[in-house]
Amino acid sequence: MAVEEVLSDLKKKIEEKLPNGTTISSVEFEGPQLVVYTEEPKKFADNGNIVRNLAKALRTRIVVRPDPRVLMPPEESIGKILETVPDESGVSNHHFDPDVGEVIIEAEKPGLVIGKHGETLREITKKIGWTPKVVRTPPIKSRTVQNIREFMRTNHKDRKDILKSVGRKIHRGCTSKDEWVRVTSLGGAKEVGRSCFIISTPESRIMIDCGVNVGSDDNMTPYLYVPEAYPINQIDAVVLTHAHLDHQGLVPLLYKYGFEGPIYCTPPTRDLMALLQLDYIDVAAKEGKRPPYSSADVREGLKHTIVLDYEEVTDIAPDIKLTFHNAGHILGSAVSHFHIGDGLHNVVVTGDFKYEKTRLFDAAVNRFPRVESVIMESTYGNSNATQPSLQEAEKNLQNIVNSTLKKDGIVLIPAFAVGRSQEVMIVLEDAIRKGIIPNVPVYLDGMIWEATAIHATYPEYLNNDLRKLIFQKGQNPFLSECFKPVDSNELRQKIIEEPHPCVILSTSGMMNAGPVIEYFKAFAENENNTLVFVGYQADGTLGRRIQKGWKEIPLSTNKGTFVVKMNMNVEVVDGFSGHSDRRQLMDYIKKMKPRPERVYTEHGDERSCIDLASSIHKRNKMETKALTNLETVRLV
Amino acid sequence: MAVEEVLSDLKKKIEEKLPNGTTISSVEFEGPQLVVYTEEPKKFADNGNIVRNLAKALRTRIVVRPDPRVLMPPEESIGKILETVPDESGVSNHHFDPDVGEVIIEAEKPGLVIGKHGETLREITKKIGWTPKVVRTPPIKSRTVQNIREFMRTNHKDRKDILKSVGRKIHRGCTSKDEWVRVTSLGGAKEVGRSCFIISTPESRIMIDCGVNVGSDDNMTPYLYVPEAYPINQIDAVVLTHAHLDHQGLVPLLYKYGFEGPIYCTPPTRDLMALLQLDYIDVAAKEGKRPPYSSADVREGLKHTIVLDYEEVTDIAPDIKLTFHNAGHILGSAVSHFHIGDGLHNVVVTGDFKYEKTRLFDAAVNRFPRVESVIMESTYGNSNATQPSLQEAEKNLQNIVNSTLKKDGIVLIPAFAVGRSQEVMIVLEDAIRKGIIPNVPVYLDGMIWEATAIHATYPEYLNNDLRKLIFQKGQNPFLSECFKPVDSNELRQKIIEEPHPCVILSTSGMMNAGPVIEYFKAFAENENNTLVFVGYQADGTLGRRIQKGWKEIPLSTNKGTFVVKMNMNVEVVDGFSGHSDRRQLMDYIKKMKPRPERVYTEHGDERSCIDLASSIHKRNKMETKALTNLETVRLV
Repeated sequence: MAVEEVLSDLKKKIEEKLPNGTTISSVEFEGPQLVVYTEEPKKFADNGNIVRNLAKALRTRIVVRPDPRVLMPPEESIGKILETVPDESGVSNHHFDPDVGEVIIEAEKPGLVIGKHGETLREITKKIGWTPKVVRTPPIKSRTVQNIREFMRTNHKDRKDILKSVGRKIHRGCTSKDEWVRVTSLGGAKEVGRSCFIISTPESRIMIDCGVNVGSDDNMTPYLYVPEAYPINQIDAVVLTHAHLDHQGLVPLLYKYGFEGPIYCTPPTRDLMALLQLDYIDVAAKEGKRPPYSSADVREGLKHTIVLDYEEVTDIAPDIKLTFHNAGHILGSAVSHFHIGDGLHNVVVTGDFKYEKTRLFDAAVNRFPRVESVIMESTYGNSNATQPSLQEAEKNLQNIVNSTLKKDGIVLIPAFAVGRSQEVMIVLEDAIRKGIIPNVPVYLDGMIWEATAIHATYPEYLNNDLRKLIFQKGQNPFLSECFKPVDSNELRQKIIEEPHPCVILSTSGMMNAGPVIEYFKAFAENENNTLVFVGYQADGTLGRRIQKGWKEIPLSTNKGTFVVKMNMNVEVVDGFSGHSDRRQLMDYIKKMKPRPERVYTEHGDERSCIDLASSIHKRNKMETKALTNLETVRLV
Repeated sequence: MAVEEVLSDLKKKIEEKLPNGTTISSVEFEGPQLVVYTEEPKKFADNGNIVRNLAKALRTRIVVRPDPRVLMPPEESIGKILETVPDESGVSNHHFDPDVGEVIIEAEKPGLVIGKHGETLREITKKIGWTPKVVRTPPIKSRTVQNIREFMRTNHKDRKDILKSVGRKIHRGCTSKDEWVRVTSLGGAKEVGRSCFIISTPESRIMIDCGVNVGSDDNMTPYLYVPEAYPINQIDAVVLTHAHLDHQGLVPLLYKYGFEGPIYCTPPTRDLMALLQLDYIDVAAKEGKRPPYSSADVREGLKHTIVLDYEEVTDIAPDIKLTFHNAGHILGSAVSHFHIGDGLHNVVVTGDFKYEKTRLFDAAVNRFPRVESVIMESTYGNSNATQPSLQEAEKNLQNIVNSTLKKDGIVLIPAFAVGRSQEVMIVLEDAIRKGIIPNVPVYLDGMIWEATAIHATYPEYLNNDLRKLIFQKGQNPFLSECFKPVDSNELRQKIIEEPHPCVILSTSGMMNAGPVIEYFKAFAENENNTLVFVGYQADGTLGRRIQKGWKEIPLSTNKGTFVVKMNMNVEVVDGFSGHSDRRQLMDYIKKMKPRPERVYTEHGDERSCIDLASSIHKRNKMETKALTNLETVRLV
């Protein structure tokens, strides 16, 4: 059936199901959802069940939009909005988008704008015609979030075209008589870095992740030139499990190559992705390397990004439905569930995941309506790769901080901007608040503060305890006074030139670049200071050299190479990883409901992937296999 | 390096290596070979070593052609040719092709035209300028061979363009830094029928076989629509292991889809392929089905076919060399050896093969300069799939024939036109000649006689004993007087209406169509007659029903359906198969030199492929795997 026919068919069905006297003017696909235009938005707003029932009956996501003719002028509308919402909601900004009939309302307490079951929103619609969309006023101002929202507004016309075209492709209908599902590994199999997989059926092709291996020049990019991926417009959509560069760092390259399809990810993943991509370009330029793409390609990707919240079942291809679930790895990280065909097959791609509740996140989800195949990460898949518990890690860190501060020393913690930094921040804030460690300043340098701002923008993506703390107790740990963002060269110089007991969290995590180097140069020679590693240090990085015990460390700066004498203490605190350790990996599968039939391992060195696959096979009597780059396996 | 540069570079190198005073006018790629044009063909002809040494030094196939300016007019030339060759050579035809400067000489004894080490040929070149090419005068006239030769002559201009373009693509040079080799199964894995595999590297993609599953409407074609094969012009070349429809039946479809690349196969495979493709169209039309392609597509394929003899090492892509070896399965069947990269990997694709010397062919080759991976057929891969020896089978057949003829009965043998028919013919001829069975007529109906004519055209593809019999003893069994081709409806009617003791070999092999039905209808009710199966009868065929013991067999003809009463004897003679039995499959790998590292099984039902893979693994401690359709495995 041609899309036009599908649409007119849907319109007829909707009209049949509407209460008497309710009319619609047109229907159109927009990305994965069906937009219903009406001249009577009030009637729809009156009855919250209409849309819910329609969505259920038609098995698709539906939004109702006012026909542009019934919209109240913006200047009048904003008055009505402010009249309707309670003052405590703290509306801080708004923006009218006539193309979609939407008004974006930025509020400190979005819940109050939404109202119980969306009551207040419906009231607004009834009064002004516009469809209100509520976003949170970030408690910490994030340049990234601000820029992205601004960018989306500026490009709303392009975006509307993109969404319409994506929507029509999703609803193009199935044509093949064959039924099969296969998975091709283009990167990240028996290795870490450049994760990239393709799920394909006779109807469609979905790319999952498109990472860059920043640690390797030879094997930097996935095998994107093979026929399964090239030319790139054969791909229907890109699905991103989370925002780390080894999972999304080359997405802008796809657009540089002419990709025109959508990216699906969670809202935090979109924002963190943009932040990390722009930083990647920056770092490459600073290292004198030619970045593989430009900021224009990053923006092109953003324009094509469709965000989905956890648990939203969404059509992303004629025969594929995607649902994200919490993965517990970093903010917005998602276990991705693909339902293929009409009950033909269900495959779960874990992405990186933590199967344990942490300070920031709930444990990764492993309950699904159905699942036959699982593709899972294996970073700590090796049988000896158990990690200390989080409590042990916290205690360990507290002790190190205490003993260093007792000597009036400085604690320097190299950390990645996204993920471990925020975990360590919460641990430190908690310890300071409870008086376990002294109330010293915790300096945050590099991109850590910006990444934290993004975390603060999306509290609904943090775990229950943290959310309660923020919303019910009004106590946002990220806003604690102990945190001091290093937002100028002057402040950094002051910290270095006037050393005082403090904790410094700074990028980069493996000490191969970033402001951490400045601090290290300044503090390495004093034996009262301590360098604390909370993350993995890869071969060839400065961090690894220090761990190996180098005592004299050559460093090159603008002014030439000189040698740093290494006197400060070096400590390693394991257990803060965002990855499941071996036990958790095994448990995740063992306790998965329903029990899967087959498990494929990836994202780990060769030994870890093979060891995990073989252990799961032995323990659970499931078919397992360690995936191999450039190989294709058949699920059905 | 651009092709033009490569060519001028090659020209320089050739000029450096030529003896003093020998000049060349130009060089050009033509398919896989390098053509050197000279105004002094006599000098090259004088010294047979020049070309041999050049080919060795440049590691490519070289032919020397006279510059058109030095060619003697054809009418004079033919006189010189007849003067030069001995009368006994029996020159029966000739054809001058000014585009390539060649004269095709058809002779009864090509060896005499060629002379010792090519002496006579060189003498001819010296005298007339033209390059002589010698083909055998077919001892039995084959319409197919004749038509193909005529077609190639008529289309020599197109062919020259095709060969030039293919040649330039082969020599386009390598560009990728990556090194990998992978194999994708598009058909024929864990099944028999629609064999189709792709070997790919970063530089090139080779399709091996492209068969049709004539027995299945649902799974008739390989998965040609997947990105590894579609669009089809990403494929560099198609390599055919042999001429059976399940290995080449859909090749014309590739040309219908716009394929422009070459087909590589042996000369007999080309001729048998054309015969079987045209028959396939014919049969489909007769059954009221729409054939998937037309005879124009068959011709397009022929135009793009480049024939290679056994043991000729040939560049077919910038990084792939192909060598065919005898496979012992049917006339021209080839074990295909691919040398990939500069020593990177060697993979042997067996195609269908018989690892035992038969009446017609030598045992399949399993010695190679190097081999790491083997992709092998598994028709009789199951552990209980042993077959009687050929001697037993022969004796068995002789006994059945004798006992039937004793009762004045008729022996009816349904058989495939290509392969088993000729084997059975030789067995019967031998038995008649030696007086083991009475000298009765052996009627050949259907395409058997035409296929036999093609066998007779290529005695160099038969085994040593048979070649000796034909060339040294002048005793060609195919020409024996006992064979009576049924070349008219009248003769067939006569055989039916005036029954007399005889043997009838007729297509089709599974009795689902063809003249065998006519004979069956006529002879089934007489209990003195015998029906002898020498080949496999698939489910759903008339042959299988008879084997199951049906006593009343409904047959539909133009005049409606009627029932044949089944009184004739039914016998099954196993052991004439062109496939290796289980023991031979195991031995083929065990005795392979050098020892391969990995073995992949295909071309067998699921159980046979898995059983064989697992047995080879256990017996030889090699990595093995049964391939799966739509999966890709990595060899390097």
